[in-house]
Amino acid sequence: MNIKLIGVLGAFAASLVLIACSVAPPNPANSRSAMTVAEVLEHAPPSHWRQPDPNNLVELKLAQGSVLFELAPRFAPKHVANLKQLLAQHYFDGLAVVRVQDNYVAQWGDPMADSDQARDLGSANVELPAEFYRSRSGLPVRLINSQDAYAERVGFVEGFPIGTDGDRAWLTHCYGALGVARDVDPDSGNSSGLYMVIGHAPRHLDRNVTLIGRALRGAEHLAALPRGTGILGFYGDLSAGARIAMRNGSELAEDERNLEILRTDSSSFANYVAARAHRIEDWFADSVGKIGLCNVLPPVRNVKDS
Amino acid sequence: MNIKLIGVLGAFAASLVLIACSVAPPNPANSRSAMTVAEVLEHAPPSHWRQPDPNNLVELKLAQGSVLFELAPRFAPKHVANLKQLLAQHYFDGLAVVRVQDNYVAQWGDPMADSDQARDLGSANVELPAEFYRSRSGLPVRLINSQDAYAERVGFVEGFPIGTDGDRAWLTHCYGALGVARDVDPDSGNSSGLYMVIGHAPRHLDRNVTLIGRALRGAEHLAALPRGTGILGFYGDLSAGARIAMRNGSELAEDERNLEILRTDSSSFANYVAARAHRIEDWFADSVGKIGLCNVLPPVRNVKDS
Repeated sequence: MNIKLIGVLGAFAASLVLIACSVAPPNPANSRSAMTVAEVLEHAPPSHWRQPDPNNLVELKLAQGSVLFELAPRFAPKHVANLKQLLAQHYFDGLAVVRVQDNYVAQWGDPMADSDQARDLGSANVELPAEFYRSRSGLPVRLINSQDAYAERVGFVEGFPIGTDGDRAWLTHCYGALGVARDVDPDSGNSSGLYMVIGHAPRHLDRNVTLIGRALRGAEHLAALPRGTGILGFYGDLSAGARIAMRNGSELAEDERNLEILRTDSSSFANYVAARAHRIEDWFADSVGKIGLCNVLPPVRNVKDS
Repeated sequence: MNIKLIGVLGAFAASLVLIACSVAPPNPANSRSAMTVAEVLEHAPPSHWRQPDPNNLVELKLAQGSVLFELAPRFAPKHVANLKQLLAQHYFDGLAVVRVQDNYVAQWGDPMADSDQARDLGSANVELPAEFYRSRSGLPVRLINSQDAYAERVGFVEGFPIGTDGDRAWLTHCYGALGVARDVDPDSGNSSGLYMVIGHAPRHLDRNVTLIGRALRGAEHLAALPRGTGILGFYGDLSAGARIAMRNGSELAEDERNLEILRTDSSSFANYVAARAHRIEDWFADSVGKIGLCNVLPPVRNVKDS
């Protein structure tokens, strides 16, 4: 990936190089930038954006608005397949948000799940083997130059932030990450109870829960819900939370899924990482020179913006 | 700081050591734990908890509830003093939340600030020199063993999460951090416009804005507010946001400030960091072995809980 240097170079850029080099050695995926973040996005050609496969989109519908997620079947094929089976049955329609723990997660599913009035899972599996991580081999990993608190190396696979060590690779709990709730038994999740990260990345959950995707749009509708006052942020009355419905993206009209994502294997994304790491915008008194994984999630825009 | 090993050791603990050593070398401030997080807090003696100085507490009152902040005058003496002057004048009463940007910040102040109807700052200063970082010397820094994306070393000073490199030390933008809004001019902040972090830590703001404290209680009342739909999450009508009032802690009744914070210079806090880094709770399939700064903020509890 080449970093295109667009803009005014000269004395200012030269001093930037010194600042940048003192804090983070240049790296193909995270070098100094001569563009602002806005300029990088403005210059990204149409081919550097992709529209997600509708069959890997999921809509969570709330009265406040919809959250649109992209699924990551390469990381959690069984949990994604089970979710699609549940969606085909419209399993979630009329269920509810049962938990909103501040600076942590919002969780939804069947308020009666632990009772004899639990909704039937139909043809979906009740138990699934955990998919906490997978082999890195075969994955098109784009590493970024970041010192990470929780993983040896971090980067992206087809739009998803990941951690890796040795041959292991896993989806990370950045803001908007979509996970499968489970009990103490690691194999007790089945995609009928789901959660989304609404606060600072709880990265200690990485490799402890099966993540299946991330929010592309509308995460704020979950993040702004009233917090639960029970233990772990559960609502005292589980049935009192916001009512939900969920649909597979293939059931959405085109204008309900009219978004595109900056391709993480494009040079524009490398420029984006560089521009977020080395801030040249006038406002920045300190150009930073570093970047954290969850602070550089792939930009998403409406198709009509292009 | 000694790590007290309380609980069942033996084969299980021995395997934990191996896991811990392979990912994070033991360190006085972040070693392996034989206690769960809950056990650490349960065993912390009363002397390891402190009640904050009321004069360094600030209440932000919203219809939804109050947010209680602790100020950090050692890091931003001028901005804290100016805020106290404004509080003495009850400057904020009747002003509003003007911006809620999802996964970023909530900001409050005078909706008319940029007009000729701006509220008068009275005896407070209109401009202040930036206090983005300070000398580390003289600060009782407790480092933790964490690879940080944005700072050479990280740790705590009297309850506040900090970053440091060379002789510089600064407050960090973890969840709940309280900052002073500014314009492009680094010296344009004056504590009349404030913000709190409501999402994943925007650590690129470190050393770019003056931070003056952190939320101890009630951050959820800001985090759950409706997001603004204007640029940067500003409300279209700045005057339409949630009404606010602010008081210095010395004006609060005792039961409005009945909380205590685990002392970050105590062995219990070291145990807490260790227990958060090396998870031995049954639920954890992977004991993690690592910790991020913003994932180990000092616990706060009601005095009546003790």
